[in-house]
Amino acid sequence: MDFELSEEQRAFAQTARDFAASEFAPHAARWDAEAIFPKEAIAKAGELGFCGLYAPESIDGLALPRLDATLVFEEMAAIDPSTTAFITIHNMATWMLGTWGTEDVRKRWGAELTSGRKLASYCLTEPGAGSDAGSLKTRAEAKDGGYLINGGKAFISGAGSTDVLVLMARTGGGGAGGISAFAVPADAPGVSYGKKEHKMGWNSQPTRTINFDNVHVPADHLLGSEGEGFRIAMKGLDGGRINIATCSVGAAQGALDAARRYLNERQQFGKPIASFQALQFKLADMATELVAARQMVRLAASKLDAGHADASTYCAMAKRFATDAGFNVCNDALQLHGGYGYLSEFPLERLVRDARVHQILEGTNEIMRVIVARKLLEGDADIR
Amino acid sequence: MDFELSEEQRAFAQTARDFAASEFAPHAARWDAEAIFPKEAIAKAGELGFCGLYAPESIDGLALPRLDATLVFEEMAAIDPSTTAFITIHNMATWMLGTWGTEDVRKRWGAELTSGRKLASYCLTEPGAGSDAGSLKTRAEAKDGGYLINGGKAFISGAGSTDVLVLMARTGGGGAGGISAFAVPADAPGVSYGKKEHKMGWNSQPTRTINFDNVHVPADHLLGSEGEGFRIAMKGLDGGRINIATCSVGAAQGALDAARRYLNERQQFGKPIASFQALQFKLADMATELVAARQMVRLAASKLDAGHADASTYCAMAKRFATDAGFNVCNDALQLHGGYGYLSEFPLERLVRDARVHQILEGTNEIMRVIVARKLLEGDADIR
Amino acid sequence: MDFELSEEQRAFAQTARDFAASEFAPHAARWDAEAIFPKEAIAKAGELGFCGLYAPESIDGLALPRLDATLVFEEMAAIDPSTTAFITIHNMATWMLGTWGTEDVRKRWGAELTSGRKLASYCLTEPGAGSDAGSLKTRAEAKDGGYLINGGKAFISGAGSTDVLVLMARTGGGGAGGISAFAVPADAPGVSYGKKEHKMGWNSQPTRTINFDNVHVPADHLLGSEGEGFRIAMKGLDGGRINIATCSVGAAQGALDAARRYLNERQQFGKPIASFQALQFKLADMATELVAARQMVRLAASKLDAGHADASTYCAMAKRFATDAGFNVCNDALQLHGGYGYLSEFPLERLVRDARVHQILEGTNEIMRVIVARKLLEGDADIR
Amino acid sequence: MDFELSEEQRAFAQTARDFAASEFAPHAARWDAEAIFPKEAIAKAGELGFCGLYAPESIDGLALPRLDATLVFEEMAAIDPSTTAFITIHNMATWMLGTWGTEDVRKRWGAELTSGRKLASYCLTEPGAGSDAGSLKTRAEAKDGGYLINGGKAFISGAGSTDVLVLMARTGGGGAGGISAFAVPADAPGVSYGKKEHKMGWNSQPTRTINFDNVHVPADHLLGSEGEGFRIAMKGLDGGRINIATCSVGAAQGALDAARRYLNERQQFGKPIASFQALQFKLADMATELVAARQMVRLAASKLDAGHADASTYCAMAKRFATDAGFNVCNDALQLHGGYGYLSEFPLERLVRDARVHQILEGTNEIMRVIVARKLLEGDADIR
Repeated sequence: MDFELSEEQRAFAQTARDFAASEFAPHAARWDAEAIFPKEAIAKAGELGFCGLYAPESIDGLALPRLDATLVFEEMAAIDPSTTAFITIHNMATWMLGTWGTEDVRKRWGAELTSGRKLASYCLTEPGAGSDAGSLKTRAEAKDGGYLINGGKAFISGAGSTDVLVLMARTGGGGAGGISAFAVPADAPGVSYGKKEHKMGWNSQPTRTINFDNVHVPADHLLGSEGEGFRIAMKGLDGGRINIATCSVGAAQGALDAARRYLNERQQFGKPIASFQALQFKLADMATELVAARQMVRLAASKLDAGHADASTYCAMAKRFATDAGFNVCNDALQLHGGYGYLSEFPLERLVRDARVHQILEGTNEIMRVIVARKLLEGDADIR
Repeated sequence: MDFELSEEQRAFAQTARDFAASEFAPHAARWDAEAIFPKEAIAKAGELGFCGLYAPESIDGLALPRLDATLVFEEMAAIDPSTTAFITIHNMATWMLGTWGTEDVRKRWGAELTSGRKLASYCLTEPGAGSDAGSLKTRAEAKDGGYLINGGKAFISGAGSTDVLVLMARTGGGGAGGISAFAVPADAPGVSYGKKEHKMGWNSQPTRTINFDNVHVPADHLLGSEGEGFRIAMKGLDGGRINIATCSVGAAQGALDAARRYLNERQQFGKPIASFQALQFKLADMATELVAARQMVRLAASKLDAGHADASTYCAMAKRFATDAGFNVCNDALQLHGGYGYLSEFPLERLVRDARVHQILEGTNEIMRVIVARKLLEGDADIR
Repeated sequence: MDFELSEEQRAFAQTARDFAASEFAPHAARWDAEAIFPKEAIAKAGELGFCGLYAPESIDGLALPRLDATLVFEEMAAIDPSTTAFITIHNMATWMLGTWGTEDVRKRWGAELTSGRKLASYCLTEPGAGSDAGSLKTRAEAKDGGYLINGGKAFISGAGSTDVLVLMARTGGGGAGGISAFAVPADAPGVSYGKKEHKMGWNSQPTRTINFDNVHVPADHLLGSEGEGFRIAMKGLDGGRINIATCSVGAAQGALDAARRYLNERQQFGKPIASFQALQFKLADMATELVAARQMVRLAASKLDAGHADASTYCAMAKRFATDAGFNVCNDALQLHGGYGYLSEFPLERLVRDARVHQILEGTNEIMRVIVARKLLEGDADIR
Repeated sequence: MDFELSEEQRAFAQTARDFAASEFAPHAARWDAEAIFPKEAIAKAGELGFCGLYAPESIDGLALPRLDATLVFEEMAAIDPSTTAFITIHNMATWMLGTWGTEDVRKRWGAELTSGRKLASYCLTEPGAGSDAGSLKTRAEAKDGGYLINGGKAFISGAGSTDVLVLMARTGGGGAGGISAFAVPADAPGVSYGKKEHKMGWNSQPTRTINFDNVHVPADHLLGSEGEGFRIAMKGLDGGRINIATCSVGAAQGALDAARRYLNERQQFGKPIASFQALQFKLADMATELVAARQMVRLAASKLDAGHADASTYCAMAKRFATDAGFNVCNDALQLHGGYGYLSEFPLERLVRDARVHQILEGTNEIMRVIVARKLLEGDADIR
C-alpha cells in the first residue's frame, strides 16, 4: 500500500492548479452569473490534454489512469466545479467514443475531442427515464444501411453547444439488453434542442432537452455492438461517478481553503473568529470529511484502474460519500462566512449551488445506495 | 395546555393562504429570477393588515399576538419565503417604531407602514459588526437640536427601496449601552445606497449597504431613550427570530407539499416513486422535523407573548432549530425531485436558496447557541 | 393555544419529581447493576396513583389525560428510565384491561393494578412476529366455555414477575382481523417463562419469553369482542408510544442536568470546561433537541386526548423523534463527561443503555416512519 | 499510489482472523458478562507476535509498519474490541519501552512483553488531568540514585493485572516540558490499586486507579531523557490513536457482517427484511462509512510509517472519524436487529458498548478536533 502521490502526479496536479488559477479563477463568477459556456477556456484545457485524460491513445488521449485524472479534475473544480464537471462529462463521452467507436468514428471525432476543439455530450436520461435508465424509449431502427433515430433526451449537459452526441437508444426489445450506443453528429438533420434550462447552478454549462425526429446515422456510428449500449453507458458512468465525486472534492477543497483564510482574517468581538472553538471544531470536521472523501474517490479510481470485480460498487460508494461530503463542506464554509457567504462576491454560494447537483446526477445518491446494498446483500461481496 | 388553533386563527391562516395563492404564487419564480421587489403585492398584503400584524393599535396595527402573526407569515412563506421574510422585517421595524416612537414619529409614518403603503428597513449590522452587533461604529452626535449621523450599515433588507430606516447608532461610549435607536427618513440628505448585492437567494428583496454622511435628524426621531437602542434592537430581534423561523417552517411546508405530490405522480421502474420505502422514510422524517420546528416556533412565540423571563432563550432555540430544519426539509425535497428539483421551473431550488440565509440572518445560528448555552450554564434557567 | 402547564399540573409533576428523588434515585444504579425488579418501589408509585394514571375510574384509575400522565412519567424517567418504562407499560396494560375488560375482570384485577399491588404485562410480540405484529401465531381456541391458548410470546416486560398478562392471540383467520385480546392470570396452569434475558439495559425490569401450553381461560377474560384484539393492541400502543417517548424525554433531561452541572464543576486547562465554546454549543443543541422532543410528545398526547383523527400519526412522529433525540442527548451528555461518563458511578452510561431500547420497542422507529409516510402519501392527511 | 494489500498482508490478516475466530469468538460474550481479563488468550496472541507488532526487534518485536499492525488489530476487534483494545495499548506501551528504554529495562521486560507473557499499562491520565494531560501532578523526584514517585493515575487499562507501568510523571517544572517517562514495576512497593471500575463496556480489561506512595525506581528506569516524557507519551498516542481507530473499524466490520446475515435471514411481512429498501439504504450507508473509516486509518498509519510532518494531524483525523463512524455503524447494526440487537445473546449491544469508549480514550474526539483545527489555522499545513 502506498498513499503518496508520485513526483509526476504532483507536478501534473500543479499544472492543473496553475491552469485553473489563470484560466478559470478570474472568470468563474461571471460565467456563472451570465450563464456563459466557456468553450475557449475548455479548448485551452484541451491543449494540456485535459479533454482526453483517460481516452485511449488511438484518439490522441493521454490514456492515464482514472486516479491521475482525478488529480486534474480536483484542482480545476476547486475553482469552478461547473465548468470542470462539463469537462469530466466530455472526457467520459470521449473515452466511450474512443473505446467503442469504429475506426471511422474515431478518426472523424477522436482527436478533435481529446484536444477540446470539439465537444461531446452524453445522452442517456429521458424525461420519463431517470433513475430507471434501462427503460429508455428513444428508438434507433435499422434503416437504409444505418439507423433512424426518434425520441427525446433530457438534462443533457452541453446540449446545443456540443458537436457529438453519445446517444443511448433502443434497437431491440424492452429492458437494458435492447439498448445500443451511438455517436450522433450534434447538427444532424432532425436533431433539435429545447430551451436552455434555468438551474440552481452549473450555469457555465448549458442544459437542454434534445429531440430526435427521424435522425439518420450510418451503421458505423454504432458504438460497440447492438444491445451493448447499456453496458457501455454504465461503464462510462463508473468513471463518470468518480469524476463527479472528484468535482465535489475539489469544490470542498476550494471552500475549505476560503474558510481557513476567512476565519483568520475576519475579526469579531475583538479577535479573529478563528479563535472561537466552535468554529475551529467545524473547520476540523470539514477537513476530516474532505480527506475521507478524497480517499474514497482515489480508492474507487484505483479499483476501476485495476479492473477490480467490485469496482462499480466502490464507484457508487465514492460517489455517494464524496458528493454528500462535498456539499456539506461547501455549505458549512458558507455558514462560516456569515452573511458574506450568501453574497456572490464570495465563491461560497456558487460552490454550494454547483455541488448540489452532484448528489443527483450520474445516478442519484439513492441509486448509489441501491447499487451498494445489492452487492452487500448478495453476500458474496467482500467490500472491505 | 392547548395545542389547537381557534376557529378565528384557522380562518386568519386561510386568508393568508388564499392571499399567497393569488398574489404570490403566480409571480414568485419571476420575482426571484428577475430580482423584482414586489412593492405592490406587499401593499396588498398591507390591505389585509399583514404589514402591521403585531404593531400597536396606536399606529393602526392589528396588535396581534406573535403566535397569530406566525400563522400568516407561515402561509405566505410556503409560497415565497423571500418576499415574506421582507414583510416580517418590515413588521419588526414597524413594531419598533410604533412601540418606541414619539407621537410625531408615529403620526408621520405609523399608519403608512402598517398599511404597507410605505416600507421600513431595520439597520443594525455593519461591515465590521455582524455577530458582534454591540460593537457598531455608526455615530449619532447631538447637534442643532437633533442628531448628526455618520457611518455605514451593511446587509440592509429593502435598502434603497424603503421609506424609513430604523437605525441603531452610537450616541454614547463603547459597548451596547452607548447605542440609541432612531427613525431616519430613507431619503434624508446624506443617505446613500450601495449597489444591489448579488445573492444566492432572497432575490425579491434588495440588499444594499447604506452610507450616512452628516445625516441630520430631529431629536424626536429618537426611539426610546438614549442608550436604550441595543435593548430595543434585541427586543425587535426576539420577534424577528420567530418570524424568520416561521419563514423557514413555511418554506419547508411548501417543499414538503411539493414532494408529496411529486412522489405520487412521478413514475420510475413502473410505479410511483412513492412506493419506494427509502423515499417514504425520508418524507416521514421531513414531516416530523417540520412539525417539531413549527412547535418550537409556536412555543417561543407564546413565551414572548406571555412576557416569559426566558423568552429570548426560547426564541433563540426556535430560530436555531426551525431554520436548520427548514433548510434541510427544503433540501431533501429537492433531492426527492431528482434532476427536476435542480431546475427553476420547480420551486424547490428557490426554496432552498431562500431558506439558506435564515440560518445566518437575525443572529447566526452560532449566536443562537451562544445565547442558549449562556442561559443554561448560568444555572438558574429552567428551560423545560 | 396555550403552552403553559397549569398550577395543578406543575404540582403534580413536582410530586413525581420528589417521589423519584426519594424512592428511585438512591437505588437506580444498584437496580441496574444487580438486575433487581423493584416491586416495592413500584407499589409506592401506585400509592400516589402512578400505576393507573389514565386508567378509568371504574377500576380506581385517575382517568387523567395522557398529557398529564407524561408529566409524571417524565420526572420519574429522569432518574430511572428502566423502572419508569415498566410502570408505563403497566399503565398501558391496566388501561386496556380497565377499558375493555368485563366487569368480572375489572373487579378481579382492576383496583389491584391501579394501586400497583399487582402488575400487568403486555403480550403482543412473538419471536417471528415483531414489526409484523399482525401475523402473530399464538392461538386461542374456543373450548369448554372459554378459550384454550397455545403459543409463545417474546420480549415481554415484567414476565415472570407480574400477575396479569394482557395477551393478543388469534381466535380467527389470518391477519389483524383474526386477533383477540385476553386477560390471562400470569400463574395459570400451562403458562411457563423463559430465562431472564441479558440485555444492554432496562435491567430493573425482567424480560422473558412466555410459553402457553393449553392454557385455559374463561370466556369473560376476553377483552372487547372477538377479532377486536389488534385494534385494542394498537389503541394501547398509541398511548404506549407517547409513554416511551416521554421516558426518553425524561432520560434526556436527567442527562442534560448532569451535563450542566459537570461542565460547571469540571476543570481542565485551568478553568471550568463550561468555558469551552464547542462544549457550550453541544449543550445548547442538546437542550434544543430536548425541548423539541418534549413538545412533540405533548402535542401527540393532546391529539390523543382530543380523539384527533390523526392521533396515531402524531404518536408515531413523537415516538420517532423523541426516542431518537433522547438517545442522542444522553449519548452526548456521556461524551461531555469524558471518561467519567463511561463509568457506572455516573448515571450517564445507564441512561444511554436504557434509552437505547426506546428506539426499538413499542414499534421500532422504522415502523413509525412507515406509519407517518402512509398517512402523508394517502394525501388526505393535513399533518401540520 | 496503491490501495491493495500485498499477499503477505492478506495472509497476515487471515492469520489474525483465524486466531480471533478460535480464541476470542467462543468466549468474548462471557468475558464481557463476567468481566474476565483473558490473560491466557492474550498470551496466545503473543505467540503469534501480536503483542509486539511494531515493537523494535531489539526486544523481539516484529517491527512491522503501523499499517500492517492495523490489519491484525482490525480482525481481532471484529470479534472482541475490548480485549483487542487492551492488546493495542500493550503494544503501544511495549513499543515505548522498547524504543526509549535503557538496555537494562529492555532486557528485563522487552521479550516478556512482546511475547505477551507479561503485560504493560500506559499511565498518563490523572483524575484532574484528562484532556489537559500536560498538567499532570504525579511527581518523580531524584532520590538515592533513582526517583521517588508520588501521585495518582486514573482510567488505567489493565491496572492491577499487568506487570509494567509506563508512567508519565513530573520531574521538572509545570507544563509539558517538565514531564518524564518511566518504566515502573507494577508490584513495586508503594504501588496500590483502586477497585475495579464498573463500566459501560470494555469489561474484559480491568480499569483501575493507581496510587504511587513513595515508589522508588532506579535511574535506569527512565525512558528517554528527563523532560522528554510528554513527547514520548504523545508519540505513543499517535500510534495509539490509529490502534483505537482500528478497533472501531473492526467492531464496525463485525457489526456489519452480523447485520448482513440478519437481514437475509430474518423474515417479516412474509419476506426477508433484506427486501425492505430503507434497511438496504441503511446497510449501504454503514458499509460506505466503514470503508471510509478504514481508509482514514490506513492513510494515517502510512503517514506515521513515513514520518510525515503532519502525521499527528492525520492520526487525529483518523481517530475522530473512525471512532465516530465505528460507533454509528455498530449502533445502526443493533437497530437493524430490532429487539434482538438489545439482547446479549447477539454481539451487537456488546460491540456498541465497547466501541463507545473509543470516542473518549486516547484523547477525546473533542481534543482530536483541537489538534486538527490548530494545524489548519496555522496555515502552513497542506492537509490534502
